[in-house]
Amino acid sequence: MLHDEPHMPLRAFDWDSRMAQRTSGMKSSIIRELLKLIQQPDIISFAGGLPAPELFPIKEIEAACQRVLETNGARALQYGQTEGEEPLRSYLAESMSRPDLRVEPENVLITNGSQQALDLIGKLFVDTDSCVMTSEPTYLGALQAWNVYEACYVTVPQDDDGILVEEIPRLLAEGWKPRLVYVLPNFHNPAGTTMPLERRVRLVEIAREHDLMLIEDDPYGELRFEGEEITHLYRLAPERTIYLSTFSKTLAPGFRLGAVTAPKAIVRKFVQAKQGADLNTAVFSQLVVAEVCRSGLIPRHVQTIRRVYRERRDAMLAAMEEYWPEGCAWTRPHGGLFLWARVPESINTGEMLPRAVARKVAYVPGMAFYPGEKGGFNAMRLNFSYAGVPEIQEGIRRLGDAFKAELAGSAVAVGR
Amino acid sequence: MLHDEPHMPLRAFDWDSRMAQRTSGMKSSIIRELLKLIQQPDIISFAGGLPAPELFPIKEIEAACQRVLETNGARALQYGQTEGEEPLRSYLAESMSRPDLRVEPENVLITNGSQQALDLIGKLFVDTDSCVMTSEPTYLGALQAWNVYEACYVTVPQDDDGILVEEIPRLLAEGWKPRLVYVLPNFHNPAGTTMPLERRVRLVEIAREHDLMLIEDDPYGELRFEGEEITHLYRLAPERTIYLSTFSKTLAPGFRLGAVTAPKAIVRKFVQAKQGADLNTAVFSQLVVAEVCRSGLIPRHVQTIRRVYRERRDAMLAAMEEYWPEGCAWTRPHGGLFLWARVPESINTGEMLPRAVARKVAYVPGMAFYPGEKGGFNAMRLNFSYAGVPEIQEGIRRLGDAFKAELAGSAVAVGR
Repeated sequence: MLHDEPHMPLRAFDWDSRMAQRTSGMKSSIIRELLKLIQQPDIISFAGGLPAPELFPIKEIEAACQRVLETNGARALQYGQTEGEEPLRSYLAESMSRPDLRVEPENVLITNGSQQALDLIGKLFVDTDSCVMTSEPTYLGALQAWNVYEACYVTVPQDDDGILVEEIPRLLAEGWKPRLVYVLPNFHNPAGTTMPLERRVRLVEIAREHDLMLIEDDPYGELRFEGEEITHLYRLAPERTIYLSTFSKTLAPGFRLGAVTAPKAIVRKFVQAKQGADLNTAVFSQLVVAEVCRSGLIPRHVQTIRRVYRERRDAMLAAMEEYWPEGCAWTRPHGGLFLWARVPESINTGEMLPRAVARKVAYVPGMAFYPGEKGGFNAMRLNFSYAGVPEIQEGIRRLGDAFKAELAGSAVAVGR
Repeated sequence: MLHDEPHMPLRAFDWDSRMAQRTSGMKSSIIRELLKLIQQPDIISFAGGLPAPELFPIKEIEAACQRVLETNGARALQYGQTEGEEPLRSYLAESMSRPDLRVEPENVLITNGSQQALDLIGKLFVDTDSCVMTSEPTYLGALQAWNVYEACYVTVPQDDDGILVEEIPRLLAEGWKPRLVYVLPNFHNPAGTTMPLERRVRLVEIAREHDLMLIEDDPYGELRFEGEEITHLYRLAPERTIYLSTFSKTLAPGFRLGAVTAPKAIVRKFVQAKQGADLNTAVFSQLVVAEVCRSGLIPRHVQTIRRVYRERRDAMLAAMEEYWPEGCAWTRPHGGLFLWARVPESINTGEMLPRAVARKVAYVPGMAFYPGEKGGFNAMRLNFSYAGVPEIQEGIRRLGDAFKAELAGSAVAVGR
């Protein structure tokens, strides 16, 4: 006890009774518990969604930091507009514009990573028990963002060409009234699928016919290894689409810079929501990344990323062919960071994870990507951007061994 | 129309019908409309809360960027832990620790500015119609954060020593059941007041007697111009207090780095909420600021800020004495960025703002700091950190002229 301090002993306090109702949807998931296992050295992890750190253009970023601080330091270190900094909004508006689609800076809001855009969408559009329509499986982070706003979900199955759009009118006929339809048309996380143009056009037709709002999440769109770029939903139906993008995959996640592109009136709504959420995204990060963009680095850098990730995808696919037992199937993504694998139904990928980790290999069990963790029990998401080719080969071999052991074990269990 | 594009003409879409109920609390306020007036050149603005940009330690930050990228670039540019980066959490834990209070890194969460902490508090603790107890006036950003979660407010009046704590039991006896009590004990925004130790002790006694949770918002605590540091509420009652701090005022706002200090179990709840909100705060910013902290710059830099802001506060107080008419009163803050002024009741500071702007001077009308904008009609918040001494003198003179014109005008109106 200090001489100037009154003695105030610690008391108990019941925090639980103070928590908002919505926090009941925030309970630590089975998945998060499982993923703690992965925080070990020597593990070949296909679990994360991390870009290859050895590709980060560190020198160019260092030069951009120096230039921004020397020419514009006082502005870079000050508070900024909630909308985001003009040079970055302009860059994004220009890169989204097409001969038939004019995107202006006022159509763009800079966010603290694409995840913040998902949170702001929840804040703006999701009431308690609002129905969100999404593919099954779907991006885990979107579920985390919208569970907090107590969304409920109606899921649409997928095939190798993405979401089965003809299921949507069927679900609507059953009485579902989705507040929004969430889609990842390019290199879907976790499924690794891409929607062909015809399916996108059909989705837009259905959305127009049934007055649906679309959220188009496109973090990996630039990372295409093969085939031609396919038109965005935002370009097909800008009146009803909110488009999400990010610099985390084309440059680096360390700045946490994402963006919303939407009708100007909706951008103004996002601005109101973001003002209460964090006032503005860091000006310094925005100006550094705008400087990197101005230098023309991004398109060159994206070429490098595409080449390296393509090699890694190919290595993963080849190793799966070589090492995995019969009864497994997987997607063959045309880009992005992830593929989706199904294993024989007797294997539960959640239950198997500790045994895979014992073999020093990790993945995310499929159920993480199902609302309520109610599916995907014999599926898994594999990331191919982070580990190098030799590790990918070794990790896929270990997984193959793990499957074979599971199958032998379940054969024994059946025999007993 | 491109040859590979189907022709899909723009349609109308009714966005309003998709908005969540909570967005009705996000309508553009009168204040925000008024503040648009201020975005003009040549205006002496006391309206913002901007640190003095000429004091930003640009060279030191440039050196820190270089050092982080050269020694730790791959980590700095990657995704990071939701909790925040260890070096920064440790620095904050150490600087909060006292002989009778051990703060560990696990007690600290790094946020995207202090505003994000307010938003996460809303997410974790505020249900629709939850009662928040706050001083009157109070920080506008807290209202913006919690209006979204549909909080209602019960307000406690203040005097020159801050919140009138003996009013709290009286309000509780009236039946108010606050989910949390929000206080700014040091250099209150907007009031400029500081709670003496005895009042803090009494607040903690009342909180313990009535089982209240405390939010202690302390963005300016380090910026003390005179007197001795006064013990934090968090130190007096760590079991029931969530403490908020920021680097925006001691270093620069351009990184958007704030922090929550709280019991470890509550930090884990914040982590769950933050994961859905934005995954993590930018690692690059965190490591750069941790490097600046490691170099020992912050305490030296805070000395500079204190000296300059003190001069500016003194200049503002002296000019108010010299130029303002009878019937005005104001606080004399011992630190921070703001003071609070009251003018004769016949002057409505909201209505006067356009006329002040015509005289090229701006402030924030008092009503901005009242829940529902239901008070403070003859008050205003003045910032003294941004403008230099000669501008402060000139701006305060212009405000004095504006008051005199209002008083003459209302005398005419009364005479009619």
